[in-house]
Amino acid sequence: MREVAVIGIGQTKVDEHWDLSLRELAGMAVLDALADAHLDGAQALYVGNMLGGSANSQQHLGTYIADWVGLRGAEALHIESACSSGAAAFRSALMAVSSGAVDVAVAVGVEKMTDSPGNEITGELATAADADYEAGMGLSFVALNALLMRRYMHEYGWKHEHFAPFSINAHANAVHNPCARFHEPITEKSYLRAPMVAEPINLMDASPIGDGAAAAVLVPLERLNRNNGRPVIRVAGSAAATDTIAIHSRRDGLWLRAAELSARQAYAQAGVGPQDVDVFELHDAFTIMAALSLEASGFAERGQGPRLALDGEITPEGKVPIATRGGLKARGHPVGATGMYQIVELVQQLRCEAGGTQVPGARVGMAQNIGGSGSNILTTILVRE
Amino acid sequence: MREVAVIGIGQTKVDEHWDLSLRELAGMAVLDALADAHLDGAQALYVGNMLGGSANSQQHLGTYIADWVGLRGAEALHIESACSSGAAAFRSALMAVSSGAVDVAVAVGVEKMTDSPGNEITGELATAADADYEAGMGLSFVALNALLMRRYMHEYGWKHEHFAPFSINAHANAVHNPCARFHEPITEKSYLRAPMVAEPINLMDASPIGDGAAAAVLVPLERLNRNNGRPVIRVAGSAAATDTIAIHSRRDGLWLRAAELSARQAYAQAGVGPQDVDVFELHDAFTIMAALSLEASGFAERGQGPRLALDGEITPEGKVPIATRGGLKARGHPVGATGMYQIVELVQQLRCEAGGTQVPGARVGMAQNIGGSGSNILTTILVRE
Repeated sequence: MREVAVIGIGQTKVDEHWDLSLRELAGMAVLDALADAHLDGAQALYVGNMLGGSANSQQHLGTYIADWVGLRGAEALHIESACSSGAAAFRSALMAVSSGAVDVAVAVGVEKMTDSPGNEITGELATAADADYEAGMGLSFVALNALLMRRYMHEYGWKHEHFAPFSINAHANAVHNPCARFHEPITEKSYLRAPMVAEPINLMDASPIGDGAAAAVLVPLERLNRNNGRPVIRVAGSAAATDTIAIHSRRDGLWLRAAELSARQAYAQAGVGPQDVDVFELHDAFTIMAALSLEASGFAERGQGPRLALDGEITPEGKVPIATRGGLKARGHPVGATGMYQIVELVQQLRCEAGGTQVPGARVGMAQNIGGSGSNILTTILVRE
Repeated sequence: MREVAVIGIGQTKVDEHWDLSLRELAGMAVLDALADAHLDGAQALYVGNMLGGSANSQQHLGTYIADWVGLRGAEALHIESACSSGAAAFRSALMAVSSGAVDVAVAVGVEKMTDSPGNEITGELATAADADYEAGMGLSFVALNALLMRRYMHEYGWKHEHFAPFSINAHANAVHNPCARFHEPITEKSYLRAPMVAEPINLMDASPIGDGAAAAVLVPLERLNRNNGRPVIRVAGSAAATDTIAIHSRRDGLWLRAAELSARQAYAQAGVGPQDVDVFELHDAFTIMAALSLEASGFAERGQGPRLALDGEITPEGKVPIATRGGLKARGHPVGATGMYQIVELVQQLRCEAGGTQVPGARVGMAQNIGGSGSNILTTILVRE
């Protein structure tokens, strides 16, 4: 198993890109990543995307994007695991390079959710839940998360206002990220006054949809030119795990078992623990998911995720900086692209290119990308050598 | 890079399975493959599927199926490359095992195309073509293949009747395959009299849609128990290549460049050439594709694919046996499952379990799975040791 490094990154702004197609968005990110890597080609392309077939009437995205960016002849596949499709594409690229089959792979996550011919995005997103027993009963993803959040508040005694710091931190950090969808800081007052979506989840608990693409170039560590002055970013840990697709099948609905499993494996591979992680780009699709992710990954005791946030430990200066470039909440959540945005943002942190939200001396970065209601979770650890 | 073996196979009949859901179909194939391998679990599941999101309102098929078959916690992803999604899932499993990250992987292809809520299958299949410049102009896949077939007949002087042996061979072989959709042999007369779909493609040139699933279990060769009396089936070659997504972008529309590229790589890996291949399960979605695939993979000269068929060389007793279990034409073409049916059928041949269409002494088998109009092609070579 060859060790692998990330040598190039590219991304578009997350926005309503009504003038850009799926291939134009993905193409911009891929070509930027290749340029950043000082390469003009790759042998393989892995595309993370969830809604192309339904929202954009375009599947077969491997070929579609490889063709567009001029990677003629290259191997190219589309990988889907709902909202963790981005990390899944990254992991597929990692497998290909570490197996020895491919020497230069590009992973790109892309999603175009606004201005689509379908435009029933909430219903399309619900195809990641159980069609027979969840979506078919009218449960959307915000409804599923509202059930979890209400139960969590009941079990552990938290009030809605205790989740405010997650949202405030994300928006404060996004101000410094030119690729983020939102650049307006929010206050506790605006958090509390936001319109209700599905009680107790209001608009400020929920991440926005958007259009965007993010990409990374992976090569074997042994082929790296170590004399070009750039820090070497090594993929130190990568693991994936699943849980039941429907939340009603779980013995414990408030524990992200797939996060625990994948984080534990990734820690073991990287030889680190939560205490060594300098930046944690987690999957704050809803504030409740940020809390659950912190707990299952070993950063907080069960039921105590909000405590870290209330203590100010999740900011770039805190003990566990999260959503340092805005997170899903404020950078935006173009679902199949999100996992690749997390990777790109980690690389920025480890290269000390994160500007106003740089975590001082960041050396170990972790990303966790969640598909469905915690049912498919990938954890990736990158280390600056 | 570890060598990999296929130690278990499973499949359902291709049919209109109105009483079985996507997960039931996939589950049957996965559990049969695990039982055939004498295993009760796996670390990773790779699901090839094209139309789940649109035809079945169900995405996130990795988790959905892993959960159903009891692979709780396992890594699980959905892979899509249009009609070559099945082979793409197999290749993803191969990468995972050969990289050393996974010791037991299951690849399953599954598709449920009949009795679906969407039921605009022709339109949904067209999402594998270029949405802007092909599908958006009204070109369906049969129309795209009709353009290719007409041009091919014009260039090389073949008549429609010269394609009859492809269809006759497929239907004759399917009679002996209990999992095939059709069990009725056809004659040249019935071929010629079949209703026209898109001139010159008539109903007997085109493969039928269907519901079905096929699966295989992959493990490292080094972990194999060689004393259980069963032949060892090694993955000797695996390669993937793309071409332009739209046929109008190709310099030469009658040459499957991605078939040539992937076959050439797979031959090199396996240390064999076309002359060594005992069985070739090719992608006869349309008779024209069978001809083009034979040519680009080195079995016939350019423009001479139909000659092999007319000379009787494509039957199980011929020089290049194809569609030995019925092929796409008569076993059926549940699109995302087809590539895995090909793998299962090759393993049957190499294990000498192919009954009435057993190719005597088959040792080297090749499968070629095509996504789009020849735009994403995977070639796999299996060898009995």
